[in-house]
This record gives sequence, structure tokens and C-alpha cells, in this order.
Amino acid sequence: MTSGAVGGREAALSPDAGRTLRGVVWAPDVCAARFGDPANRWDPEVEVTMALPSERSNDTLLPDLPGGPLCAFRARASFSWRQLALFLESESELRLKNMLTSPLQMSTFISCLGMYDWSLATKFFLSVLTFGSAIYSSGSKRHLKYILQLLSMEIFGCFALTELSHGSNTKAIRTTAHYDPATEEFIIHSPDFEAAKFWIGNLGKTATHALVFAQLCMPGGQCHGLHAFVVQIRDPKTLLPMPGVMVGDLGKKLGQNGLDNGFAMFHKVRIPRQDLLNRTGDVTPEGTYVTPFKDSRQRFGASLGSLSFGRVSIICMSVSNLKMAVSIALRFSATRRQFGPTDGEEIPVLEYQMQQWRLLPYLAAAYALDHFSKSLFVDMAEFYRDVLKKNWSARQAELGREIHALTSAGKPLASWTAQRGIQECREACGGHGYLAMNRLGNLRDDNDPNCTYEGDNNVLLQQTSNYLLGLWARQGQGGARFESPLKTVNFLEASSDILGRRFEGPSGGGCLDSSVPLAAYEWLVCYLLQESHQKLDQEKRSGKNDFDARNNCQVYYCRSLALAFLELTVVRRFHAYTHQPSVPPSLRAVLGRLSALYALWSLSQHTALLYRGGYFSGEQAGKMIENAILDLCSQLKDDAVALVDVIAPPDFVLDSPIGRADGQLYRNLWSGVLQQSQVLERASWWAEVSTNKSVVGSRKAKL
Amino acid sequence: MTSGAVGGREAALSPDAGRTLRGVVWAPDVCAARFGDPANRWDPEVEVTMALPSERSNDTLLPDLPGGPLCAFRARASFSWRQLALFLESESELRLKNMLTSPLQMSTFISCLGMYDWSLATKFFLSVLTFGSAIYSSGSKRHLKYILQLLSMEIFGCFALTELSHGSNTKAIRTTAHYDPATEEFIIHSPDFEAAKFWIGNLGKTATHALVFAQLCMPGGQCHGLHAFVVQIRDPKTLLPMPGVMVGDLGKKLGQNGLDNGFAMFHKVRIPRQDLLNRTGDVTPEGTYVTPFKDSRQRFGASLGSLSFGRVSIICMSVSNLKMAVSIALRFSATRRQFGPTDGEEIPVLEYQMQQWRLLPYLAAAYALDHFSKSLFVDMAEFYRDVLKKNWSARQAELGREIHALTSAGKPLASWTAQRGIQECREACGGHGYLAMNRLGNLRDDNDPNCTYEGDNNVLLQQTSNYLLGLWARQGQGGARFESPLKTVNFLEASSDILGRRFEGPSGGGCLDSSVPLAAYEWLVCYLLQESHQKLDQEKRSGKNDFDARNNCQVYYCRSLALAFLELTVVRRFHAYTHQPSVPPSLRAVLGRLSALYALWSLSQHTALLYRGGYFSGEQAGKMIENAILDLCSQLKDDAVALVDVIAPPDFVLDSPIGRADGQLYRNLWSGVLQQSQVLERASWWAEVSTNKSVVGSRKAKL
Repeated sequence: MTSGAVGGREAALSPDAGRTLRGVVWAPDVCAARFGDPANRWDPEVEVTMALPSERSNDTLLPDLPGGPLCAFRARASFSWRQLALFLESESELRLKNMLTSPLQMSTFISCLGMYDWSLATKFFLSVLTFGSAIYSSGSKRHLKYILQLLSMEIFGCFALTELSHGSNTKAIRTTAHYDPATEEFIIHSPDFEAAKFWIGNLGKTATHALVFAQLCMPGGQCHGLHAFVVQIRDPKTLLPMPGVMVGDLGKKLGQNGLDNGFAMFHKVRIPRQDLLNRTGDVTPEGTYVTPFKDSRQRFGASLGSLSFGRVSIICMSVSNLKMAVSIALRFSATRRQFGPTDGEEIPVLEYQMQQWRLLPYLAAAYALDHFSKSLFVDMAEFYRDVLKKNWSARQAELGREIHALTSAGKPLASWTAQRGIQECREACGGHGYLAMNRLGNLRDDNDPNCTYEGDNNVLLQQTSNYLLGLWARQGQGGARFESPLKTVNFLEASSDILGRRFEGPSGGGCLDSSVPLAAYEWLVCYLLQESHQKLDQEKRSGKNDFDARNNCQVYYCRSLALAFLELTVVRRFHAYTHQPSVPPSLRAVLGRLSALYALWSLSQHTALLYRGGYFSGEQAGKMIENAILDLCSQLKDDAVALVDVIAPPDFVLDSPIGRADGQLYRNLWSGVLQQSQVLERASWWAEVSTNKSVVGSRKAKL
Repeated sequence: MTSGAVGGREAALSPDAGRTLRGVVWAPDVCAARFGDPANRWDPEVEVTMALPSERSNDTLLPDLPGGPLCAFRARASFSWRQLALFLESESELRLKNMLTSPLQMSTFISCLGMYDWSLATKFFLSVLTFGSAIYSSGSKRHLKYILQLLSMEIFGCFALTELSHGSNTKAIRTTAHYDPATEEFIIHSPDFEAAKFWIGNLGKTATHALVFAQLCMPGGQCHGLHAFVVQIRDPKTLLPMPGVMVGDLGKKLGQNGLDNGFAMFHKVRIPRQDLLNRTGDVTPEGTYVTPFKDSRQRFGASLGSLSFGRVSIICMSVSNLKMAVSIALRFSATRRQFGPTDGEEIPVLEYQMQQWRLLPYLAAAYALDHFSKSLFVDMAEFYRDVLKKNWSARQAELGREIHALTSAGKPLASWTAQRGIQECREACGGHGYLAMNRLGNLRDDNDPNCTYEGDNNVLLQQTSNYLLGLWARQGQGGARFESPLKTVNFLEASSDILGRRFEGPSGGGCLDSSVPLAAYEWLVCYLLQESHQKLDQEKRSGKNDFDARNNCQVYYCRSLALAFLELTVVRRFHAYTHQPSVPPSLRAVLGRLSALYALWSLSQHTALLYRGGYFSGEQAGKMIENAILDLCSQLKDDAVALVDVIAPPDFVLDSPIGRADGQLYRNLWSGVLQQSQVLERASWWAEVSTNKSVVGSRKAKL
């Protein structure tokens, strides 16, 4: 944690801003909503749907944007940005009055807070949501006091799982918790520095309590595997470490430096027996291990779904970052002029096909992935509602597995798309994109860990391909139908038909509709699933053990399969959303184009496979896709600024001189530069340079 | 410029390190070598070659690396890393005694200094090489005083071309220089803030003099276009701005924050008539514009070659960054263990096919692009030698155009490969890669502007495709043969044969040799050239003007053409280098694998086009390429650590705890974390948080 302010955007938080935000973060109804104050409890019976759009425009809710150079582009838009904003968000989400009636307000809350500052948002989520909800879901009545202390701000939490030498392989965590029946205490201990808890957000400077994962060992020597313990780290009154705890801050990271990632080593730290979170296993005072669960398979499926919350949030974070980056780059591109058909006349760089092709697919991706993120939030809410109802049905377990598969590939797809998109936006803004105040670097750096935490992207993709391969194998054994609660795999039922399909140039208007790539994606997923299955089979038949066989099927097979399946799901959901009858007629064209552009552009990354597997043949198939992408870019460029007006946060949140809504590119940038501290002053070290010059240089030698 | 040290790596320069480095930077023979002190003048007759390897190993030159966990991997290598290091670099380059006998020592010097700190290196290059050599090449005898002052450190220079509203389109620069015959002065003036010089390296805090590009206007009102003027910015004794100059620092950037990028506005600043650099045009005292050049076409070709120096340097910078990133990531991967075939046994992540596939192609790219960078330096030196000889032959102009085409695509290829490679390395090191001290963020941020300055990558690629399309059109008109001084386009002579070729699975050992992708690349470039030519023709025939027609041919056509041509050139040169008879037998296998891996991996990005154009057909072609890439990765993984030992700088330069040569991953990281300042201290603001908690929280409310 390098900045002086707790969780504040580095050097950007005025004392007032801090106070205001702290008010938002700690709004009691937000916390109560999640943690079941009886009066405010999330009502499992409230139906979970994506709110339908309000048709009436509301100028107070969405005030006029400032005039200026962007007006010319706005006037060209084929639709009203206000209408589309209300279609996508609905008035109630935009108002964020409370989080009880719609789960989408949770995702809106995450993105609003995070767009201002991810460090601040993450500090809050890690303490209240990650630490708090783990206690809520894995503990019992005796742990309720921690949740109350958390909500009253008496304690501040963190989630201490990973160690210096272990991240992905959580089973190999080496911190121990030995039970001592004499005192009815656990002894938390780090065997060596490689087992130090490491990377733990909030632990560096602020956490008073940690949820520490450790190997539970009994006096007899038996070990019962990883369990979670509430361990006090610091005295809440002094913020000094507790005896036996060596705790510190990891230092500067590539981004999110308002978050204090830390480490801790425990030297035989004793905690009460009651501080074991005992939902899955408990220790009696005498030292007997007891577990209330019998059918561990169903519980596993259900717990997979619960794990997904972090990943769905990361999808939402990634989409928020991508939205901000394309907003900055497209407003810049509509106002930056460079070259032109004649020497005297320069045109906005957005008029160049190259600039459109670099940026507009990412704009479409921001829209498509935003819809996917929201729809997945709704699915999660449905799942969570049944968890609260203690529904342990087979369908609930199946839903848990499906959501796990979607989030395990959704997080990689969203975080990588954002990572690449932000970099493209940075480059598309040239040198001005490299200036820190324009914020593209901050977005890239804050987005970067989304590719790593809650599961490394490449490792995580295996969860999705394993899910699909498992279904495929079960079906091959003459077993179940392809049918899942969210219907994402139901098309596999027709896989033999689908594999026989071939691309035929669409009759008439080219492939400017997302139904063409949708059909191609269905073929692609079936093809990759069949190929991956055969490859795995072949590796096993060649004598490889299961571990090696799976490892040798990832590159070009399972990894591609997981991504293609997720892209198909995103494309399918966005296609359905943009083609539903309730879409206002004036928004149909622009939404249809966004859907088609995202679908075709994503698909075009797989052209080689489409040819290789025989779905495409001849020169025209590939060219048709490319031409459609360029046509759609050209059709969307006049709508680009208005599309960005819909998704961009207010200027004080976006905080980018070249991306402000008034489009006064140079005036804002010039003001931003000149208003920095000491911008026109001599450097403090001027004399040193000057003195050195006369001593070291040749002038003295010439005397 | 945010750090207090001039050009020092932020917060990392100890006073001693600073002194040592300053000595290196200002070594007089380095400067004299470039600027023609008669005794030391670069001798145009010295033959320019790439030094052949010294066979004898030299333990003093390349001392033993420290023992530790990497030894097991080093023992598996099929070759001696010392032998390969000497094969690639030769003893004399490694010693860097002087820069006169081999131009490669220039590139070695750039990379050695830059690997320590690009900001420091850039400050030096911008002043001495960019500012200094522009005066040398564009000025005349009357400007020699500036070069002498520069070398004696009385002045410090910068190169002031771009303005707030103009970068790529330099013709539209708006700063003016009006000549006043009454006083024999030029009046340098910025018409408004959009014409402020902007992004100028060294201008922010340190430059005393700038080479200002301005529109030369005569008293009669005629304008003669852009010319360069030496303008004093600050008093060298006080570093205070000169009258009429408003100068300041741009503030924080994404990287290279040890470099002070600045802006300047000129309010009617008067400079003597003599400070116009007058090689291409001069003004008489009375106010008449005179130019000594007649054949401007030949001069243009030659000057294009001169422009290439900056781009060749950026290729070298990008390769240096990629070398460091793969060194860090591969040493990490050989020592980081995670999962394994059994619960008790974990294996290094480098053993996973996925990790090999993510990293080893970038290792191969570092080697292949390093060779390309060096060979281009040699070509540049040959070109520059003839410039010094005032050779204005047609061949020299043609060589200038060819080098311009190679650097215009070489800079994009190298900078993008480094950008993507560094990001992959960051992700491949997981969370530890996200810790700033491990340096991958610093490499990414310092490398990023390589994609932008000296020409935006996408804009620059048009120079290369224009060169190829120009040759193709000339040949189509029954004109010249395809023959260029460096022979990079000679294969086009056989284009009709090449276009008729089809991929046939290589007989026997698969396609584990770079000759297979080399043949495929030749077909690909011919195909893309033909397609781009036809597309341009079609756009023009549809009635588009030249500007629009060219713009609509970039995406999927000219852009791909330029990159494929450059990749072919890199592959061809590295193939020839690794297959020459002088390669020691014990190095042939490993170098051949690196060459094949880079070639196949690059080619695999174009598989869709190979299918679409009919070069590939059937499933096997694509699979064969993929299998060959994976086989090569597997063959190279035991050589990976030793290959990295060859290209990694010493530990104090690489400066990455997870990438140290001793491979003590966790010990180094743990020490690095604990040795930071105040790592175990309470945050300075602890009381504020604690106080706030008791005021805002619910404890008070409960009283």
C-alpha cells in the first residue's frame, strides 16, 4: 500500500471525495441485504428476472451531455442514447435505491464503485463480501458475532488462502492448525517462510481479522485437510500485530496500489476452538473430528456454484474496465484529426477503416459481455436463492456445475478481452494514451490481475472443458441427454447433425446478422469437443496416466474448446437479447449490428479451424466474414459516440481529459497538464545537475 | 519526470550506481566515435561484417553462474551456454572496448544501458544521438559549436517535432519561423496551445537547447515548409527558461518516468539567422531562400535510410525487453512447482505443455529477432558508411528505400512481439509476476511506447506495403526485375511459380525444420501482395480517390502483407544464420530448433490465410504445424534455462527476485519483500482509521 489514503485512488482522493465514498461503501442497507437482517432478508420468493426496459425517457436521470466537438457525431446517431441506456439498464438500476428487488443492482454497485477506484472497491468486497460471506456460509451461529462486528466496523477482514509457494494448488497449502484438547485451542503455525500467507488483500496494513486456511491436525496425528479459521491479526484499537503474528505489506504492485496486499507468518498462535468454521467439519472439546455431511458429491456441486461469485464479479469488473477504455478511445478518435484527402483538410481518425476495425469490435464486446455478465448474475441469484432455501436437489447440483463451467471460462474470456481491448485503446490514442492522466494505463494495470486471481485463466479453462468432456463421455456411454438447467449445452443433442453442416454463403444481404456466426459457433464447439475427446482418448491409449494425458490435451484442444463454448454462449445470449420482440424498433438496427459484429469478430479468430475441419471451403467464405466485419464497423461508426455515451460513467469517474463527454480534447488535456503541481517549476535537483556539469565536463579541463 | 534523480531508474539508483553509470554514458570515445573527431572518425573503409564466433570459451568473460535449484535444468542442456553466448556475441562485443571496429557494439551498448534503465538510456540517446546527429547531418560547419558543447556537457538537447494536435502528420506542424531581415533573425512562434511542442523527451526539466521544427516563412509571405532550428530553451547555468519560452513537464506516464517528457510554447522568440539547419535550404541575410539540392528524389531515398536509425534502435530496445521478460519467466517456471501426478510430488510448471507453449515461442522470438536486429544494424552501418562517403548512387537510394521498408515493419513486429511476450510472461508468473519488484510491469510499461513513437505501428506498416506494392506495380508494367541490395524481395521474381506451390506434408520427420515454414511464407507474401494489389485496383476502379482507396486496403490486406513480409525476412535470416557451416556442431541442434519454432509459431498465426488461398488443404496440414510446435517446445524445454543464461543480463541489471540466476525463487522473493522500507510498520494513518471507526461505526450508536 503505497498511498497514504485507505483504499483511495492514489493521489486522487480529496478528503471530501473520501468521505462521500466511505458513506456509500458502508451504507447499512447494502450490508444488511447480503447478511440477512431478518427485516431486510433477501426474499427467496422474489422472482429473479432481468428488468424490462422502461420506455419513457427521463432527463433528470440522464441529464444532457455537454455540447462541443462531439455533437456532430452525436447528431449522426441512428438512435437516442437515452432510450438505449434505459433499455439496457432500466430506471431502477440506474437509481440504485436498494439491492433487494433485483440482483442486478449488486453488479451495478460493483461497477459504479470500481469504475471510480478498484482498490477501494476491492478493499470493501474482500472484507464484507469475501471474508463476511465465507463466515456466513461456512460458519454457524457462534460466528455471527464476527459478522456483526464487521458491519459495525469494529473489525476489518481478509481471506488468507494462498501462500508464498502455493496458489493454484490449494490442496498443498502448508499452514497447520493443531488441536490442543488441554486448553481447547487450535495452534496456528507456519512451518517455514514458504508457507507464509502471501498476496492477501487487506492484510498488508488494515485487516484486524483473517480467515486463515490451514491443515487441521488432531492430537493423534490424523490430518483432516484444509479448514478455515478466524484468526485475529491486529488489535483493532492500535492496528498493532497480535503476538506471534508477523504481518507486513508486499509493496508496490503493477496496479491496485490502493489495496494493501500483505503476508503473514504465524508462530504457534493459539485461537479458541470455536473459531473453526464448522459447517463442513467440527472438533469436539475432547478432540474428536465430526462432520455432518453424508452425500459429499451433491454438496460439492452446490459449493462450486458458491465459488463462482468471485468470478462473476471479475467478469463484471473486466467489462467495466473495457467500457471505460473504449469510451476514452472512441471519444478521442472522434475528435483527434490527422491527415485527410487534401493537405488543408484533416479528418477524425475514427473515419479511418483501420481505426474503426481496431476499436469498434471492442465496443461491441463491451456490450455483449456486459449483457452476459448481467445475465450470469441473474443465474447466480437464482442459484443462491435455492441455497438459502436449502435446496439440495439434483437439479440444484447440476445448476451449480453449469454455473461453475460458465464462470470458469467467462472470467478468462472477459479479463483477456478487456486486457487486449485496453491495450488496443492505449495504442489507438497514440502518445496521448501513454500519459498517465488519461487513465488507460491505470485501467490496464488494475484489470491485469483479473487474469490471475480467483484462478489463473489458463488453469481455470480446464474446469469448463472438463465439464463438457464429462457430459460428452456420459452421452457416449448411451447415457443422459444433453440438457442443463440454463440450456447452454442443449444444442449438443444435435451434434451429429451439426457436425454435418457446412457454411453456405447467406442468400442476399451477406452475413450481417449474428445468426450466421451462431450456426458456425455451434459447429465449432461440436468439432472441438469431438477432437478433444479423441485426443484425450488417444493420449490415454498411448499409455499416459490421467495427469499427463489431460495436460497434453490442453493446447489447441481443451483450451480452445472452453473459449469457443463460452463465446458461443455469450453470442447466443446477446443475439436472443437483441432480437427479442420487446426491443424498441428504433434500437433494433444498432443492437443487431453490435450483436453481429461481436459474433463475427470473435468467430474470425477461429477461421483456421473452420477451414481445417471443412466447415468453410473456398476463398469466399473467409472473405465474406472479413467484409461483413468491415461493413458493420462502417455502419456503426456514426453511432459510436452515442453508444459510448450510454456506457461511459460521468466525467469525474472516468477521469480522463481525452475522454471527457464534451469532446474538448486539447483544451482538457492542456488544462490537465498545466494544473499539475509544479509543472513549470525547475526540478529540485537543478543545481546538482548544473554543478556536476561544471565539474565533470570539459570546461574545467580547458582552464 | 517524477523521480528526483536525473534519468535514474525510479527509486533504484544508489548514488554509487549513478556515478558509475554516468561514467559509462559520457565515455568520451563513445561520443567521439559518432561525431567525427578526426583522430577517431568512423572509418568508412573498415569492412562491416557480423563478427564470427570465437570458439574458445572464456571463463573470465563469462563467469560461472551461481549454483542452486536451476542446476538440475542446466545439467539437462544439450549444449554449453558459454559456447553459444560466444557464438552469438563474440568476445569483442561482450567486452565493448570501443565502438569503432564493429557497428554491432553500438547495438550492444544500447541494450546494455537500456536493460539497466531505459529512461537513462533514452535521455542520453535523445540528446547525443537524436539532437546531436540531426545537427551533424542537417546542419553545416557553423553548427559544429553545438556538437562540441553537447559533448562537453555545456548544453543538453532535445528533438522538438510533434505538437499537441499533430504527431503522425508532421507536415501539419504549425509552429512558425518568420524571417526578419532587419535584424537577421528568425521569430519562432506558437500560434496557439494546440501548436505547443508536446511529448518532447528531455524538454520537461533538463534540456537547454531544442531542435525545433517550424514552418519557414519569408517576409513576402511565401512559406517553404518544415525546417529545423536550434532554439535555446533554458539557461545552462540556472536551468531557468529563456524569455518567451513557456516550458514544462507533461507529468506521469505509464512508464519511462525517469525521462522528462515536456511541452513548450514560444512567444515570438528571436534566434540568429545562423541557427537554421541549412543542409537542405538556407536563407540569405537579405531574405532570399536558397536550396543546394536538385535531384530531390535521390535525396529522399537516402534520407529515408537515415530516418531508420531510430527504428532500428527501437527494434533493439524491444528485443532487449523481451529477452529480460523470458529470462524472468523461464527461470521462475523451472523453479515454481505446482501440482503433480501424485498428491505428494509437485513438478516445475515448465514441465507442463501449456507453460512451454506459452513461453518457449517467445524465447525463440527473442533469439530470432535479436539476430534480425543485429543484421539490420550491420546493413544500416553499410548504408551510413556510404552516406559519409557522399555516395548518392541509384543503388544507395534503393538501399535506403529497402532499409526504410525493413525498419518500418521491423519496429512494429519487434515492439508488438515484445508487448505480447512480456504480458504472457507476466501472466505465466501468476501473482508473483504482478509484484512490481519482479520487474515484468516495468518492462511492459517501458516497452509500450515502442509501439507508438518514431511512427505509430499501424501507420508505419503502410510504408512497407507501399514499398512492396510499388515494386509489384513496376514489374506489372513489364519493368524492372525484383532485385534489391539486401535481396529481401528477390524471391518475388519467381512469384508465379511460388503461387502455384502447395503444401505437401514433408516426407519423414515432420516439419521440424525452418525450411518448411520458409516455403510457406514465400507463398503467403506472394498471395498477400497479389491480393493487396487487386484490392487497391478494385477500390480505385470503383471511383475512390487515392486517399480513400489506400485507407480501405489496409485491414486484412496491406497490414497483413507488411507483417508477413517482415516475418519472412526474419525467418530467412535466422534460418541462414543457424544453418551456416560455421555453426559449431554442438550448437546446431538447439539453434535449428529455435529457428524452426519461431518460424512455425509465427506462421501459425496465418493458418487461416494458408487454407483460404489453397496452400493448405485437409485437416492434416494444420495439425502437422501444431504438432511440430508442441514437439519443438518439448525438445527445447530442457535447454530453456541454459538458453536464458545466454541472453539474460547480470542479476543486478535484470533486478528481479524471481528471475535471479541462482534460482532461489522464494528466498529471493521473501528477502526482497522484507527488505523494503517500513514493511512491518503500522501505516502512518493508522490512528485516523481507528478513530474514524469509533466515530462512524455502530459502537458509539449503541452507547
